[in-house]
Formats: sequence, structure tokens, C-alpha cells
Amino acid sequence: MKLVRYGPRGREKPGLIDAQGRLRDLSAHCATLGWDELSPAGLKRLAALDPRTLPAVRGEPRLGVPFTGISKFIGIGLNYRDHAIEAGMAIPSEPIVFMKATSCINGPCDPILLPPGSVKTDWEVELGIVIGREARRVAEAKALDHVAGYCVINDVSEREYQLERGSQWDKGKGCDSFGPIGPWLVTKDEVPDPQNLRLWLELNGERVQDGSTATMIFGVREIVSYLSRFMTLHPGDVIATGTPPGVGMGRKPQRFLGAGDTLRLGVEGLGEQRQTVRAA
Amino acid sequence: MKLVRYGPRGREKPGLIDAQGRLRDLSAHCATLGWDELSPAGLKRLAALDPRTLPAVRGEPRLGVPFTGISKFIGIGLNYRDHAIEAGMAIPSEPIVFMKATSCINGPCDPILLPPGSVKTDWEVELGIVIGREARRVAEAKALDHVAGYCVINDVSEREYQLERGSQWDKGKGCDSFGPIGPWLVTKDEVPDPQNLRLWLELNGERVQDGSTATMIFGVREIVSYLSRFMTLHPGDVIATGTPPGVGMGRKPQRFLGAGDTLRLGVEGLGEQRQTVRAA
Repeated sequence: MKLVRYGPRGREKPGLIDAQGRLRDLSAHCATLGWDELSPAGLKRLAALDPRTLPAVRGEPRLGVPFTGISKFIGIGLNYRDHAIEAGMAIPSEPIVFMKATSCINGPCDPILLPPGSVKTDWEVELGIVIGREARRVAEAKALDHVAGYCVINDVSEREYQLERGSQWDKGKGCDSFGPIGPWLVTKDEVPDPQNLRLWLELNGERVQDGSTATMIFGVREIVSYLSRFMTLHPGDVIATGTPPGVGMGRKPQRFLGAGDTLRLGVEGLGEQRQTVRAA
Repeated sequence: MKLVRYGPRGREKPGLIDAQGRLRDLSAHCATLGWDELSPAGLKRLAALDPRTLPAVRGEPRLGVPFTGISKFIGIGLNYRDHAIEAGMAIPSEPIVFMKATSCINGPCDPILLPPGSVKTDWEVELGIVIGREARRVAEAKALDHVAGYCVINDVSEREYQLERGSQWDKGKGCDSFGPIGPWLVTKDEVPDPQNLRLWLELNGERVQDGSTATMIFGVREIVSYLSRFMTLHPGDVIATGTPPGVGMGRKPQRFLGAGDTLRLGVEGLGEQRQTVRAA
């Protein structure tokens, strides 16, 4: 399934994208797409519905974050070998873990807001993992049992705040609007191999990132298992798994976002995001 | 006011501690102590109640985290000059910001669980700031208008996970049970000067931390104002403002927590926490 939430911010309704790509309304079956719906039982309930029986939604409403109940937004740093090299940082021997403030969460096509005075706001297309079942010290072999599905994430990052204003990255990772998630939550049954997905990003129509999750250093199973040793993962928790090369910080000369820039980004099978950059 | 939540985990009721130190039940006036109650209007409503009209609670029930709706648990690193020196780290020129996973939040006297294999779990008594009103780019002079009150926090930290397992601290800051908050949320009217509070911690009856918020590098107003430039702070967000000297990592020889150790810690006017350390 491709699950979505659509409508104005704060008043989104649950829906799904049917096999013909049409948006259909799920409001008669659930109030939101939250902890209950992300659980194995909840997803099974939704999967049993015949999409043809669901009302088609007219027009092209705004899409919001495709699920609710995100209590943790976790990031994995430098998880593509080539990106670590372009960032001028050591290739990690185990996952680097940081947190994005949940207040940064944004719809997939909502504007990205440049913090006042920001000079180094950068893009990062990433594969997102969405937890569906509590995970505490789970083995790699069982890790996917705890995953509801996948989504596109733009792990927007202010590099000066992240790297030049103290030793910890979180300051540059959680600014308001820095966490576009969606358009869809694609359930894991539709993603047979999460380690073989193209992911790409275009800045003003120019393709600047073009990679594959095949080159991740730590894969989805390993990340979920690893994190679950340090903290319990809860339904709705979302993990941004790192970005391939091609971020603005790695370009020569460096290129950062300014008001009016547009981004288009996607992960194979998971849909596309489009954002315009604006002053906050 | 000294606001509390009491009762078994997950079924806490709202209450307050009256002038005689007696626990009284607030259930007739609010369902919880959350966003609404933490707001200036909500606190005013509660302050208008005559505590003598509230039912006294018998016995000594467990105290939970004194408020709900915590979407961000933010930490400020190395914010006491002497602690930065004992940690062997540079004195920061601006606040170091990290995040504690909200899944680590614990009642003030619930056990601290040692992650399996942990060898460097450490204590940090801290002054906690509780946000009551949304704060986005607020000036220092106005910062306290956004604060509901203060609480005791033990910023429990696994030093190996924090410092030896990658460049980012969050991995060692957010393990389950590593965020005891409470016993009370003390409203700011009862804390005339947050920069003049004693704070202390005892390990198995020996006083190992004994400091004052007077020696913070960045004070409460500055921290709230500073953070609000990087992310919007929401009601219920909580900020651990750093610890004075005396943590286990800074002792010679170093001393970390093991099963059976007991902690008692407090901040002047904000109550005490007591924890026993157990294997997870």
C-alpha cells in the first residue's frame, strides 16, 4: 500500500494511492494513520480493503506527512561511503546517530524555510524507515518485522549550525521545516529489497544527487537492530538512513540553498517531493 | 505551585503539593498536566484553586514525570565551566545542543536500567527548564515569558556510547530510563532566581556533585533564546541545562554505575529524586 495523509496542515485526512495512482479517502476506516494503523494488525486491516470501494478524492490536495505519532526522528550520519569522502570525514566504523527535532517535520512539498542569517542550508535525499512495532534489542534477522514501511526524507541541514557552532550536529538538523517526509508511506511488502533503490535529487532542474541504497555502509536491517540496542524504537518513529554524494557542501565550489531555489527528489518506488526554498 | 503526576506508570493522575507538603489531587480540574495546563492561562487557572479544597491523597504513591506532552527533550552540553574542565573538553563559546530520545523519559524515582554490556553509565544532576508557551526567535529579555517552570533532571549518560562509538553524543544520552524528570514541576513564580540554585547528587550516600546554577556558562534566559533561533520550542518541551562537576567520568579513578548503586539528587526548591540502578 501507498498510504498518505492529505489536506490542509493540521487537518489532514487519511488516504491511499490506488493501483491507478488515484488518491482515495480512508476516513471511513480510520481517523488518522498513526500507531494503531502502522502496527502489523493495523496494516493488515487496511490491506484487506478493496481500494475500489473507497471514495476517490478530486483535485490535487496538499499532501501532509503520511503518518502521525512520530515521537523520535533519528538520523544516521555519513552512511554512504562516497558521501563521507565528499564531506571530508572518516568512514564510520559503526552507525553515527543523531536526532532531528520533531518540530522540523514538514509535508513533502511544503516550503523549506531558511533560518534568518542562514548561509549554508543544504539538501540530503534519504531513504526513511518507519517503525511499525516496538523494537528493543532486536536481531538483524528479525529487524524488518518491526518496520511498517519506507518513505522519502529530505534531511535538510544547515552546515554552519551543524559543524561550526559546537561539536554536536543536532543544532543544524532540526530547524523548522528541515524534515520533509513523504509523499507516501509505502508498506514493506511493496519494497522487496530496500538495499537496491535509486535515490536522486534535482536542484533547479539539475540532477545533483543520483545514488543507490546499494552503496549504504549500514543497511536497513543493521540500522534498526543497532539502534534498538541503544533505545527502544516505537511505532511511528522514523529513521533517516543517510544520503549519497552530491550535497551542496561537497560541491566545488560549495553551493547552498537560497530563497527561490527549487528541489525535486525521490526514492525509487516511494514517490517524489518538491520544495521551494523561502526566507523564514 | 508544585505540580505532580502520581500513580502507576501510564495511569498517573494530576496533583499538586500544598504549602504543608501534602499531595492533593487535581483530577476534578484537569485530566493531565499537559500543553493546556502548562500555558500561561492554564497555570493561572490552576493557581486560582484553593489547595485546601482539593482532596488529600493518602499514602505515598509513585510519582511520575510531572507533566505530559514532551515532544523534545533537549540537552545543553558542558554548561558548567568546571565540568567542561573535568571532562577534558574545551569550554564552549556557544551552547552545545544535543537531544535525548523521548523514549528515555522516566519518573523521578523509577529505577535506572543499565543497558546490557554497559560499562560507563554515569550521572548528571541538572536544572530542567519546562516550556509553557511556543518560543520562536525570542529575545533573552522575553525568554522567561515562554517558561512554565523548572524541575530536577538526571541526564543519565553512557560515556562509552556517547564518546567512543561515533562523533555524536545522542547514542549515549537516550537509552531507556536515562531521563528521570521530577518530582515536581515548580512554576517559575516560586523560583525568583534560576541562576542561584544549589544542585547536588549523592551516590550511595556520598555527596559527589555539589554545585550552583550560578556557575552556568549560559543561563536560562540565554539558553531559551538561543535554542529558539534554531528550532521552535513547544509547550511541554524540556531542556536539561548541563551539570556541575562531580560526574563519574571526571573522578580519579573513574567511577561508573553498577547494579545496586543508589542515587539521590536534587535542585534547591525543586525536590529530590532517588533511583536504584538495575540491569535492564
